[in-house]
Amino acid sequence: MQQKRTEISTLGEFGLIEHLTKDFPLLNPSTCKGVGDDAAVLDMKDKRVLVTTDLLLEGIHFDLQYTPLRHLGYKAAVVNFSDIYAMNGKPTQLTVSIGVSKRFCIEDLEELYSGIRIACEHYGVDMVGGDTSASMTGLCLSMTCVGEAQAEDIVYRNGAKANDLICVTGNLGAAYMGLQLLEREKMVFEGNENVQPDFEGKDYILQRQLKPEARRDVIESLKKHGIKPTSMMDVSDGLASELMHICRQSNTGCRVFEDKIPIDYQSAVMAEELNMNIVTAALNGGEDYELVFTVSLDDYEKIIPIEHVNIIGHMTKPELGLNLVGRNGEELSLKAQGWPQ
Amino acid sequence: MQQKRTEISTLGEFGLIEHLTKDFPLLNPSTCKGVGDDAAVLDMKDKRVLVTTDLLLEGIHFDLQYTPLRHLGYKAAVVNFSDIYAMNGKPTQLTVSIGVSKRFCIEDLEELYSGIRIACEHYGVDMVGGDTSASMTGLCLSMTCVGEAQAEDIVYRNGAKANDLICVTGNLGAAYMGLQLLEREKMVFEGNENVQPDFEGKDYILQRQLKPEARRDVIESLKKHGIKPTSMMDVSDGLASELMHICRQSNTGCRVFEDKIPIDYQSAVMAEELNMNIVTAALNGGEDYELVFTVSLDDYEKIIPIEHVNIIGHMTKPELGLNLVGRNGEELSLKAQGWPQ
Repeated sequence: MQQKRTEISTLGEFGLIEHLTKDFPLLNPSTCKGVGDDAAVLDMKDKRVLVTTDLLLEGIHFDLQYTPLRHLGYKAAVVNFSDIYAMNGKPTQLTVSIGVSKRFCIEDLEELYSGIRIACEHYGVDMVGGDTSASMTGLCLSMTCVGEAQAEDIVYRNGAKANDLICVTGNLGAAYMGLQLLEREKMVFEGNENVQPDFEGKDYILQRQLKPEARRDVIESLKKHGIKPTSMMDVSDGLASELMHICRQSNTGCRVFEDKIPIDYQSAVMAEELNMNIVTAALNGGEDYELVFTVSLDDYEKIIPIEHVNIIGHMTKPELGLNLVGRNGEELSLKAQGWPQ
Repeated sequence: MQQKRTEISTLGEFGLIEHLTKDFPLLNPSTCKGVGDDAAVLDMKDKRVLVTTDLLLEGIHFDLQYTPLRHLGYKAAVVNFSDIYAMNGKPTQLTVSIGVSKRFCIEDLEELYSGIRIACEHYGVDMVGGDTSASMTGLCLSMTCVGEAQAEDIVYRNGAKANDLICVTGNLGAAYMGLQLLEREKMVFEGNENVQPDFEGKDYILQRQLKPEARRDVIESLKKHGIKPTSMMDVSDGLASELMHICRQSNTGCRVFEDKIPIDYQSAVMAEELNMNIVTAALNGGEDYELVFTVSLDDYEKIIPIEHVNIIGHMTKPELGLNLVGRNGEELSLKAQGWPQ
């Protein structure tokens, strides 16, 4: 919480929205009318409109003990943008509604919105609406992101075919290991408030948990190289879970090679420290906000030079199921187990 | 709560969304892809896209002690549709995200979604996305409604001019009086659980609170009669508050005549019983989901035959401020006071 503390009641609901959103620039020509009427008005011309929405609740999706409000705002916005990129689209507008208990003051909300604004500016997205209300307990954050895409560019989950290559951007499991680290240090801190958290050499996994980025760069590279994936999702619940969705909707199976799954050095070290299996974390940890997508085998030569893209396996006929090929060559059934929250 | 009680955990998140949304029909040609991918895909052709969003929290916006879940779902959806009509648009798509504590079972959520579905079917709106998650406390409901309108048809809050007529649909204050009744009966019930609530002759105000409707009929009538309002809002916070928004954004003042404010008989009786001023309730009660709009004086002849529309005053030059002309002819300053929650 901030040093200066101005009660929210001093501004009232209308004043508050105006106060929080007045510094947001409008960057998209498709935004005709943003905050301030019964609804936002957008002009998408001949493009398709993409709509995705997310509800984030304190104590379930985030812990304010180790999540700065500015980071929370940034992450919440980026997570929504990621869903639009995962359709091969471009996020253009965002609405934000918040419910806040009396614990929060205006300076807190300014922090939250400053994170949202930085994300909007970085990704070129316009804030066009939303509201604020009281809440009985904690912070409740609801965002809806609108994006645009030419109809022929949109990539769904259901277009993968047997033999398509499975690609994953960046690396996996880092956000999950960052979360484990934060949880560990929180427990240490709660045991002894004089202990300072030990985050040395762990900046990357912390950043992946607290300030993730969406894969606009890869979406732009794919377009530049003339590649349209046959299916795509962002990795929010974990690679295994996302592959399950793609395979089910595309009616395929898949084979993923354990030694191809991209893992960052810091993630591996953290897993070692915590005596956890890093591959399990990479497959099921979630919150990576990387992209998993499939491309036709014909695109193999084109995909190789693209930065931050790893080929981790291929799609198969559906009857073969979802499989993970271990380092020793043995084939295991791939299960989306998720992690207990 | 229901008799049969199936824990939400038996379905899991993905199964739950599928289960809850599988019976929703898709009615709009603009819906290319609904539930089931990273984002919904819409084709709005040459129309403008309208976006509005609402966050409803248990204990703040609704009380489940006297709000059946089916009614809550219906009302939450209709409230969003109302915002789209208030732009002179047509609601076409809806996303729904919910956070639910362990207190709720699948049968409860089925009730909630059945109300949403009835509203969607009645107003011709497609459910195209959303998610479910756990919540630490109570029920949290976030909806985003997308609508469409021809660019030239859209009505904003800022187009009113001095001398325009101020119109209000239906009647005002009924939803607020319904809320007062429910609160009174709740207190009586809490004092003595053997007492049955006394709702006789009060069905209309109860319905206005628990199952409000959006003013699609008037929007259609205005179009049929070739009238485009110069400004419009829906009455969610109370007529006085909405007039303040319109006057501020249009840079006008207004004069509203107390004896023209439409009030239903049941509302007046309830106010009498509770020793409240019904005009104050009509001006500040809110949740009416009627429309307040202004039309050019030239449209006077055209507006008269339209059902459910009442002329209550006219816009003035801004320096005259916002005024209420009482039954005795005295002019009072109109204040948007709102009600203590």
